[in-house]
Amino acid sequence: MKRGKRRSEKTGLPPGTPVHVGEQKSQRTKITVIDYDEQHLEEREVETVEECAIFKDQPNVTWINVAGLHQVEVLQQLGDCFGLHPLVLEDILNTMQRPKMEDFDDCIYVVVQTHYYNDKSRKIVTEQISLVLGPSFVLSFQEWEADLFDPIRERIRSRKGHIREMGPDYLAYALLDAIVDGYFAVLENLGEDIELLEEELVAGPGGATLHRLHDIKREVIFLRKSVWPLREAITGLARGDSPLVKETTRLYLRDVYDHSIQVIDTVETFRDMLSGILDIYLSSISNRMNEVMKVLTIIATIFIPLTFIAGVYGMNFKYMPELGWRWAYPAVWLVMAAVGVTMAIYFKRRKWL
Amino acid sequence: MKRGKRRSEKTGLPPGTPVHVGEQKSQRTKITVIDYDEQHLEEREVETVEECAIFKDQPNVTWINVAGLHQVEVLQQLGDCFGLHPLVLEDILNTMQRPKMEDFDDCIYVVVQTHYYNDKSRKIVTEQISLVLGPSFVLSFQEWEADLFDPIRERIRSRKGHIREMGPDYLAYALLDAIVDGYFAVLENLGEDIELLEEELVAGPGGATLHRLHDIKREVIFLRKSVWPLREAITGLARGDSPLVKETTRLYLRDVYDHSIQVIDTVETFRDMLSGILDIYLSSISNRMNEVMKVLTIIATIFIPLTFIAGVYGMNFKYMPELGWRWAYPAVWLVMAAVGVTMAIYFKRRKWL
Amino acid sequence: MKRGKRRSEKTGLPPGTPVHVGEQKSQRTKITVIDYDEQHLEEREVETVEECAIFKDQPNVTWINVAGLHQVEVLQQLGDCFGLHPLVLEDILNTMQRPKMEDFDDCIYVVVQTHYYNDKSRKIVTEQISLVLGPSFVLSFQEWEADLFDPIRERIRSRKGHIREMGPDYLAYALLDAIVDGYFAVLENLGEDIELLEEELVAGPGGATLHRLHDIKREVIFLRKSVWPLREAITGLARGDSPLVKETTRLYLRDVYDHSIQVIDTVETFRDMLSGILDIYLSSISNRMNEVMKVLTIIATIFIPLTFIAGVYGMNFKYMPELGWRWAYPAVWLVMAAVGVTMAIYFKRRKWL
Amino acid sequence: MKRGKRRSEKTGLPPGTPVHVGEQKSQRTKITVIDYDEQHLEEREVETVEECAIFKDQPNVTWINVAGLHQVEVLQQLGDCFGLHPLVLEDILNTMQRPKMEDFDDCIYVVVQTHYYNDKSRKIVTEQISLVLGPSFVLSFQEWEADLFDPIRERIRSRKGHIREMGPDYLAYALLDAIVDGYFAVLENLGEDIELLEEELVAGPGGATLHRLHDIKREVIFLRKSVWPLREAITGLARGDSPLVKETTRLYLRDVYDHSIQVIDTVETFRDMLSGILDIYLSSISNRMNEVMKVLTIIATIFIPLTFIAGVYGMNFKYMPELGWRWAYPAVWLVMAAVGVTMAIYFKRRKWL
Amino acid sequence: MKRGKRRSEKTGLPPGTPVHVGEQKSQRTKITVIDYDEQHLEEREVETVEECAIFKDQPNVTWINVAGLHQVEVLQQLGDCFGLHPLVLEDILNTMQRPKMEDFDDCIYVVVQTHYYNDKSRKIVTEQISLVLGPSFVLSFQEWEADLFDPIRERIRSRKGHIREMGPDYLAYALLDAIVDGYFAVLENLGEDIELLEEELVAGPGGATLHRLHDIKREVIFLRKSVWPLREAITGLARGDSPLVKETTRLYLRDVYDHSIQVIDTVETFRDMLSGILDIYLSSISNRMNEVMKVLTIIATIFIPLTFIAGVYGMNFKYMPELGWRWAYPAVWLVMAAVGVTMAIYFKRRKWL
Repeated sequence: MKRGKRRSEKTGLPPGTPVHVGEQKSQRTKITVIDYDEQHLEEREVETVEECAIFKDQPNVTWINVAGLHQVEVLQQLGDCFGLHPLVLEDILNTMQRPKMEDFDDCIYVVVQTHYYNDKSRKIVTEQISLVLGPSFVLSFQEWEADLFDPIRERIRSRKGHIREMGPDYLAYALLDAIVDGYFAVLENLGEDIELLEEELVAGPGGATLHRLHDIKREVIFLRKSVWPLREAITGLARGDSPLVKETTRLYLRDVYDHSIQVIDTVETFRDMLSGILDIYLSSISNRMNEVMKVLTIIATIFIPLTFIAGVYGMNFKYMPELGWRWAYPAVWLVMAAVGVTMAIYFKRRKWL
Repeated sequence: MKRGKRRSEKTGLPPGTPVHVGEQKSQRTKITVIDYDEQHLEEREVETVEECAIFKDQPNVTWINVAGLHQVEVLQQLGDCFGLHPLVLEDILNTMQRPKMEDFDDCIYVVVQTHYYNDKSRKIVTEQISLVLGPSFVLSFQEWEADLFDPIRERIRSRKGHIREMGPDYLAYALLDAIVDGYFAVLENLGEDIELLEEELVAGPGGATLHRLHDIKREVIFLRKSVWPLREAITGLARGDSPLVKETTRLYLRDVYDHSIQVIDTVETFRDMLSGILDIYLSSISNRMNEVMKVLTIIATIFIPLTFIAGVYGMNFKYMPELGWRWAYPAVWLVMAAVGVTMAIYFKRRKWL
Repeated sequence: MKRGKRRSEKTGLPPGTPVHVGEQKSQRTKITVIDYDEQHLEEREVETVEECAIFKDQPNVTWINVAGLHQVEVLQQLGDCFGLHPLVLEDILNTMQRPKMEDFDDCIYVVVQTHYYNDKSRKIVTEQISLVLGPSFVLSFQEWEADLFDPIRERIRSRKGHIREMGPDYLAYALLDAIVDGYFAVLENLGEDIELLEEELVAGPGGATLHRLHDIKREVIFLRKSVWPLREAITGLARGDSPLVKETTRLYLRDVYDHSIQVIDTVETFRDMLSGILDIYLSSISNRMNEVMKVLTIIATIFIPLTFIAGVYGMNFKYMPELGWRWAYPAVWLVMAAVGVTMAIYFKRRKWL
Repeated sequence: MKRGKRRSEKTGLPPGTPVHVGEQKSQRTKITVIDYDEQHLEEREVETVEECAIFKDQPNVTWINVAGLHQVEVLQQLGDCFGLHPLVLEDILNTMQRPKMEDFDDCIYVVVQTHYYNDKSRKIVTEQISLVLGPSFVLSFQEWEADLFDPIRERIRSRKGHIREMGPDYLAYALLDAIVDGYFAVLENLGEDIELLEEELVAGPGGATLHRLHDIKREVIFLRKSVWPLREAITGLARGDSPLVKETTRLYLRDVYDHSIQVIDTVETFRDMLSGILDIYLSSISNRMNEVMKVLTIIATIFIPLTFIAGVYGMNFKYMPELGWRWAYPAVWLVMAAVGVTMAIYFKRRKWL
Repeated sequence: MKRGKRRSEKTGLPPGTPVHVGEQKSQRTKITVIDYDEQHLEEREVETVEECAIFKDQPNVTWINVAGLHQVEVLQQLGDCFGLHPLVLEDILNTMQRPKMEDFDDCIYVVVQTHYYNDKSRKIVTEQISLVLGPSFVLSFQEWEADLFDPIRERIRSRKGHIREMGPDYLAYALLDAIVDGYFAVLENLGEDIELLEEELVAGPGGATLHRLHDIKREVIFLRKSVWPLREAITGLARGDSPLVKETTRLYLRDVYDHSIQVIDTVETFRDMLSGILDIYLSSISNRMNEVMKVLTIIATIFIPLTFIAGVYGMNFKYMPELGWRWAYPAVWLVMAAVGVTMAIYFKRRKWL
């Protein structure tokens, strides 16, 4: 939320005004087109939106991928070309969107978030991805050129699976599937982080454990915020009645839906585990404080009375008969030993030793 | 709740009695009228309600904005003129209303709250706004003359967007949109406050952090209390079946509805984050107490026994053979060093050092 | 739950056996009748149930208010006279009823609770109120003669509002409205108590703060327990299909329903605020403990080593060369000053000073 | 769960195998039959199941009560005689059943739990009760011969209420009513326990308070676990469409349903109160620790520096000019007094004194 | 999640690609076939999938159990033979599936998890079990050859119960019943662990108690995660409308459904109990810390002032008149006794002693 336009700067603008909201995460807007059917395949990077227009009305499946969202005018041309509603265009550009699915009779708009786990910073990076599914095309909008969709491009090229035989709805499914699969990778990394945390906890936690716990908790809160509406969006696609999604594809979408529920389950489990870890953390701090206090108390309560006794016989009164007695000194040692042993027994009984 | 009439002072009055409840926040009641269609635009500030009456039955869109609610008689005249139900008038005047939407066949009444973040006091200020949507007019009631609706006035004047071509339902939508957009500004400010809090937490929290946390928590509780029913009110408009709201406008209302859900999501996330921060705060206090205790314990448990030994040889007994020995003094130093080192090793083992 | 019959003492009695459960809160049962239509008004206190019977079949609206529930036989006569179901009579007498609304085709039975805030004891007092709405009468049963309904009597007498022109359903609405308005007064008092608590918290909380917090929390729990079913009961009236409630009155009932939701919102907000206050309370205790510990630790860790040094040179060994040195004494002072300053710098670095 | 068969020992047996699960709580199986209509009444204890069979097809209401469930073969004969489904018999014998209601067209099976509060052990004892409602009979199965149903027997004998004029559905209602009434007695006892706990809390809590709190909490958890499904079972009876339950009886069942909701409300309130008590308990421990620490700190921080001063002038250096001064001793007393008073003022300012 | 393929490694593969995800838990894939009707029974272990094919179209009930899932090609042959959808095969192989039930018109696919309690490690072991119910066959897939289904095999062999007379749906029910019964065994073990924990808590908890508590909590979280969707899967079977499940079997499935709810109830109760135990644990740590602090404070506050007095008269000033007094020494003893007794009375009053 630091760089780029903020959401509130749009206040007062008419609805449908395309403004890029959020950080600018890529240098330029890169448009790639893949056009295929069972027999043919054409793949190229285009410079201008006009080049895309020719693919629009062909019966082949056309997949136009746009990476980089800050060049508003390019996106607006694309929107005009494919007849996108101004509100859709606005949503594509606002990268702080809540995942949702909207059915405009002639196309379906889906916006979701995908997450990457950065191994170095141990933080989650989020990218918003918008999909528009039309009768013969799929438009996908990414914030930057991530390699998330590469396996699908590969499958199209190599004819692996059925993707070449299916329509644009199957392509949209495949993209969503890749996005949801991305969650599993992030969850596995988070799961490992949580396991590390538990190990630290057993080994003896410090302040760093606490801040790491807080960081992971925050990541989980954000994941959770994006995955619940994702599930809603997918169920909207799978159970909706749009003719753009064929019955055979719905079966696959229900599979993705199951995966999204699994993601939710795992996220909720992580929350429970993290709050359990915090409890244990707090308890072990208390436990350790207890230990420290016991040591202090044992030492202090044994030696303070003894020091007092020594102090008494260090007084300089003229008339202190004990000072002259022959066995006074050993006797004092005996008394002091007795006091010490009594104390030790008391602590033993109290199970402090 | 401090100045002005309190809610309970209305007890026992017949329903529909217009009484202003809440603080008086403006000096006078200011009524402005904007009357427009695609071609014409008339904008003026009126002194008496009679001046408004003439706009009522014209086909043009008439927007009457009333700022300042304590002049009950003016509002009552306006209510009579536009045929408002007494209960509606009562609700407009009661500035502690819960957001809601009510459909009286000939008009729709919506009451919502808008919030401003005061940068100086770092507190949220709340204003209640009532909207009445009729067949050709929109009445809006504000507690004081805030600049919330200025961008919309500007859009009407400058014909930006479609607002001049649309009916009063679109105007009502535009007002609601501005109100919901106001939430984002407040949320961004709160978000920054929370980030500040987290930074303070890392730097080392004090009592001030705690009270700031409490204040922000309270703001979030109040935001939450106003935003959930706001969502209900908007969904009532978007999904209702009143002929006053046209189908094209419903699409825009659904967009505002999405925004309101996003506001709710963010508010809930803030709650989670604040409770996380409190946990960390409490844990770090415990951690620091632990540190303090360790230092005390290390120093005390090392020196108390040593002081005891010194005390012993400070005793004035006549018959203490050690006192006369040649190497007794260095020997005592050695003993004391041994005790100290043993203790230090013990603490090292316990990982206290 | 202390005086009077307890709920469990009814165990085993046949259903519909009228037994007064709960404390006896008034000396005698006082029955007042108000009979009115647009033109006429008759108001009187009656001694026997027979006097009520004559009003029953007149078309005028008859409001019979019974204050004091322990004279079971009087209530039973009244029940027989107005044809109340034995289970209704049982419920009226059991003053630990859960708020509810029941539709017996020929009458509607509503039982709710009203609360008074006792300024002296700062406690909430609860009264159960039962309403029976018949075709031309309203029976209301109070535990004692409270002044809750006085404003309504006044409105009937003075023809303020529409009450004289409306039927018994409007009267029942007016009574419910007065009851729900009573909640606002209680909530305002509780709200002030909570504000006081927050101020105490800032000033420095003690054990009394804690017990006050606990007391308010308990009041809120009890309020909550009575207000949720109240809302259900009112919605049952407002959205039910009984011919006893006219369509025009339903509009007013929906208004009361809105108020009841507002009460719930406020109660829930109070809960959140109280749990926030407890968190702050606990944190500030921890904070203060921390302060106390720091002071102790600073003083102890500075002076304990110094005392040890002084102790060493208080030993009485014959052969302690330092004792005879010329500058030994000032040197020891220097050493002690150095130790003290080192410690102070250490604490400064740790930000304990 | 300690004596008797455990649930898991049934694993692998075919469904419907009658096995007694749970503790054996009575010595023998006692079967009593009450057969009545408006005119006649026959009551006797039977030895064999055959004696029951003759009552089965008579139009009179027959109530067969079985106390003691471990004699599996007796129960199986009874089941065969009255045509119970094997799964029902299995459920009757498994005394760890979840309350539920099942409608087998020719009979209705209800299983619920009843609780007794043992005044001595201050623990709740649980008994499972199964009811089978047939066209002209009610079978009830208890784990031991408890006096729960005695008042109903008495009502049948003495013709109190309408029970003799009504059918078996009313009898089943009366039994359920007695069972739900039993909850109120338990709740009143628990409520008193909670009040005691709160008083202990004010008086000054110890470890015993904590364990008592834990015990009550556990009882409440178990009550809660049995009362929610109880409510479901009763609503199933009251709102079901079985011809075995007459319309007039449904009214009474709705009354029991209201009672069960009241029980739930109270249980939930108890939970809230107990968690509030725990919070207060924890806070007052912290408070008391704070007090203890303050006393220690005040004493230690005043006397440790003073002891240091005394220690300094207890050193035996040859050249300590102060030692020879005339007013040194009183001057040291003055210095020590000054240090003490300064400390006391400091503590006063910090509000520790 | 440590050995074997991880879920994320499947990213990018076309849907329906059979890949084994999860740990490999058995050496080889073992396929056993049981084919039976009322008269005949054939049971054998097969080596190749072809041997299974012959059973497919016979009217007898055929139960094919596959133990060990890592031999992907064997499973694929089986899938082809019995016409399983590729997505089903993928789910069978992915051993981190969420329990679910899916109805493909010609077969029903159910995937659930079963748990074993390992007495030695006191940990729960989880196995995923997939069932496919076809018109005349049931396929069951286990991760390793566990003895979970042995009692059912025994029942088929020995004709115990009705299993030989019923169809494949009853067999599927019996398998599910065995799986749900397995939960009870695990819950009983967990229940005993929790009781042990409570006993430890009373005896005096240590750090081990805490980690055991954390472990059990984690097991409960995982159980919970698997049992809620299990309930959904069973209800899908019991209330679905597939012709593959006969009406008589649905009755039994509802019984399993009841059991699954009972499992859920118990799991939720365990959660409540564990959080209660944690509260008690934390409270008793605080209590014990309090005890420790009191001992320290009592000893320190009594002896520190006394040591100070002794220190004063150990000073070596030339002019200290008290030193020469005859009764000074006994007087100092009296003063010190007085101080000690005063302190003790103070502590007594504060109830620290």
